[in-house]
Amino acid sequence: MSTTLPTTDPRTGQRSDTGIETTTDENVDALVETAVGAFAELAQRSRTWRAEMLDTIADVLEEHREKLVDTAAGETGLAMPRLNGELTRTVFQFRMFADSVREGGYLEAAIDHAGDTPMGPQPDVRRMLMPIGPVAVFGSSNFPFAFSVPGGDTASALAAGNPVVAKAHSAHPLTSKASFETMREGVQRAGGPDATISVVYGQVAGSRLVAHPGIAAVGFTGSLGAAKHLRATIDKRERPIPFYGELQSVNPLIVATHALAARSEEIAAGLAVSVTGSAGQLCTKPGIAFVPSGAGADAFADQVVEAMAASTPGVLLNNRVLDSFQSAERELEGAASVKSLLGARSEGILVGQGFAVEARVLRVHASELTPAHTVEAFGPLVLLVDYDDNAQLLSALEEVPDSLTATLHVEDEDLATLSGVLPQIAATVGRLVFNGFPTGVRVSWAQHHGGPWPATNSFHTSVGMTAIRRFLRPLAWQAAPTQLLPEELCDTYKAVPRRVDGVLELADPAAL
Amino acid sequence: MSTTLPTTDPRTGQRSDTGIETTTDENVDALVETAVGAFAELAQRSRTWRAEMLDTIADVLEEHREKLVDTAAGETGLAMPRLNGELTRTVFQFRMFADSVREGGYLEAAIDHAGDTPMGPQPDVRRMLMPIGPVAVFGSSNFPFAFSVPGGDTASALAAGNPVVAKAHSAHPLTSKASFETMREGVQRAGGPDATISVVYGQVAGSRLVAHPGIAAVGFTGSLGAAKHLRATIDKRERPIPFYGELQSVNPLIVATHALAARSEEIAAGLAVSVTGSAGQLCTKPGIAFVPSGAGADAFADQVVEAMAASTPGVLLNNRVLDSFQSAERELEGAASVKSLLGARSEGILVGQGFAVEARVLRVHASELTPAHTVEAFGPLVLLVDYDDNAQLLSALEEVPDSLTATLHVEDEDLATLSGVLPQIAATVGRLVFNGFPTGVRVSWAQHHGGPWPATNSFHTSVGMTAIRRFLRPLAWQAAPTQLLPEELCDTYKAVPRRVDGVLELADPAAL
Repeated sequence: MSTTLPTTDPRTGQRSDTGIETTTDENVDALVETAVGAFAELAQRSRTWRAEMLDTIADVLEEHREKLVDTAAGETGLAMPRLNGELTRTVFQFRMFADSVREGGYLEAAIDHAGDTPMGPQPDVRRMLMPIGPVAVFGSSNFPFAFSVPGGDTASALAAGNPVVAKAHSAHPLTSKASFETMREGVQRAGGPDATISVVYGQVAGSRLVAHPGIAAVGFTGSLGAAKHLRATIDKRERPIPFYGELQSVNPLIVATHALAARSEEIAAGLAVSVTGSAGQLCTKPGIAFVPSGAGADAFADQVVEAMAASTPGVLLNNRVLDSFQSAERELEGAASVKSLLGARSEGILVGQGFAVEARVLRVHASELTPAHTVEAFGPLVLLVDYDDNAQLLSALEEVPDSLTATLHVEDEDLATLSGVLPQIAATVGRLVFNGFPTGVRVSWAQHHGGPWPATNSFHTSVGMTAIRRFLRPLAWQAAPTQLLPEELCDTYKAVPRRVDGVLELADPAAL
Repeated sequence: MSTTLPTTDPRTGQRSDTGIETTTDENVDALVETAVGAFAELAQRSRTWRAEMLDTIADVLEEHREKLVDTAAGETGLAMPRLNGELTRTVFQFRMFADSVREGGYLEAAIDHAGDTPMGPQPDVRRMLMPIGPVAVFGSSNFPFAFSVPGGDTASALAAGNPVVAKAHSAHPLTSKASFETMREGVQRAGGPDATISVVYGQVAGSRLVAHPGIAAVGFTGSLGAAKHLRATIDKRERPIPFYGELQSVNPLIVATHALAARSEEIAAGLAVSVTGSAGQLCTKPGIAFVPSGAGADAFADQVVEAMAASTPGVLLNNRVLDSFQSAERELEGAASVKSLLGARSEGILVGQGFAVEARVLRVHASELTPAHTVEAFGPLVLLVDYDDNAQLLSALEEVPDSLTATLHVEDEDLATLSGVLPQIAATVGRLVFNGFPTGVRVSWAQHHGGPWPATNSFHTSVGMTAIRRFLRPLAWQAAPTQLLPEELCDTYKAVPRRVDGVLELADPAAL
């Protein structure tokens, strides 16, 4: 039995009916089965065609920009420049995966010719990575495009050659629907099978989706709690499948002594922007900042407070985000020796008044730090921590859960002492940011948006070109007749990088 | 409390005390903690040093060949030529990983310089793969070297820069101990920290090992049952870690019409060798062979029976393998319409008589095939299946669990009909073997020794150079001062392949 989904404008708290029906079990099953059919059809298409399809999806997303951004603004309360930037990034990401598919390095094509070896005569063995089947994608509330229906999980799964069945986020069902329809239009324009992209609505449908034997992997961005629920469902499957989850992050920022002396005000201003941008609802928001104790730390705290007090009040995405922000505020304010420097604890919000909250600055000394001080507050809040020396800093950092990023503000004079603590910090994160801020994740080949548990539960994640490998598996051909090999594994094909008899070879420019 | 471990000579069934004590909880904890210390020490060493260490381990394994092989022969009942070949392969594998570490492609080094992009100005981002920490390795009974203490899991984890704590297999504790001592000698000769390689004894110690927070990943080769037990322990950890399991495989072999007509006797002889070699105790043993029905199939069955009847009776590795072989025999013989063509069902073995079993050939028609016909019989047994046409073949193949390999015997005239069924077969395995046999896995760059569940539970496994990636995670540096970067990510370093601003570049030969 299906019901219709509501949506809420976070700026007013006003709830309305979308008219979108939750997907029934029967329809979830039917969608996955057509996705399995689409998988077989996609396997017949070339990489060139698939790259075209990704580019066409990018084109159509661009064509529908106004409708997509307007819809998302109404459901997320995010500002128009932010949403426009996010859509640009989403379009860019599709084009980049298209380029990556054309380049073909992601195939990891390898050929070992038959011959005598130190192990005696050996057969011809060739291998490359192959798509795995339909992928379920669960997006996040804070990125209605870049980490949602048309986000990095979807783009990388499609780039690999897999159909995608997305679960619409309950906080932006209309945006999910509009994104799905836009992508479907792109798929159709490229001549692909409709079921290359599908969408299901409702939490029950989401559980049904990950339990379906036709689903080969799950990409997820969201809370630890939701991940746990899905994991429990996946654990009951007969055939295990990978679950790639990006879950939470506190993102420590560390200011070194000389950096504080040289650039206190600049760092404070940048921190304020990084903490309050998108109302602090970014997985890479620096939630805790370590500053050398003393008069410099007091001045820095004043500068952060001043900059954050001047920021526009943020609107949280939805009631659940508000609840969890209030609960984190309560826990942090109640933790030992914490002083509140800016903002009052958020109150319950009445319908019609929206989910706006004040920016918050808290402060504590490193010697007092406990796990109660290092919970993630998903919203515009930062905890400033005074530290006396590197030993105390390292010991305090042990109370911070492993994260997506760590940020270091350092001058040349700080480097000597820093090199001693860097390995410990590096072991706890996926990205080290120097003299900048961790928000604003560059989409590029070298990017990595992951980190040790509980930041993510897998080595590779949805940002950067290696996202594609999560949805590929190796297949080897031994002594295969040439006409049965994929073209990329034939001796005469030279248009992708390959490892031949152990030696890496670039694509032949003449073959491109 | 520790007890001492027994060992059994499979050729006689004679059990004796090894004097090896099971590792206590306290000692497991202490070993993991020293491994964590060794991890930090290893992080200070260069790739060149690590490659030297792998080569030195290979040297020392070679030096102790006689002792290692003699010890393994006494505990496994495997023939000396097989064990000598396996040790050669193990040594070769260490040298190959050493070459791979020197070559450095496995680092996946990538540099995106700062600059203007379609997304606006972007910071410098550099990334490469980094070791993850101590790895627990659980080897298999059937490969006392190549998939055990000094096997592919260990070699690839060490190559990645991680210490290894191996769990000694209960069926070859003396071989495990001798292998560990040999490797430890190699580590010491190379000047590495002792705890680069450690070993624990006993099942309780194995569970303690995978539960320890200091362990970062588990490599496992063995039964689904043992994997399930370890998985349950791992699921209780606070911090999840990857479990890479190679579990079971039936390995269908398919003879096409023209191939049967052209090479019946040759295929039958090869199949007999592949089924009876190492007493059929190979994960890639072809357990089920599909043959076009008719007079040709009858002749083929006679040829297989004749060749297998002439083979030397096999000695199974231990009581557990014997039990499970007997149980599989019972299930297969009892399945609908199965005829036994060769061999009597194995009997219970009395101490003093060893674990020898007869080679078995069973036969059934494809139209009768059910899951009861496709259980893995780990031992010298093959089920011949007559099929009438490709449609019936495909439908029968659906009853075969996904496997490490599928083997196809085909002539040119078979290729037209084969191309229609190949995608379905390819989707169910990790390696397609043409006109050969799946046993005898080549150790090379392009090799892949994995397959969809229940063959393995992960995309990448312990054979082939990509085994190393299972024990590496990405780390990105954003706008990092050059002196804080690993040398492989500095602009001036040219001795490894890298992706620079999206373009793959080979190492500069002048820099090597």
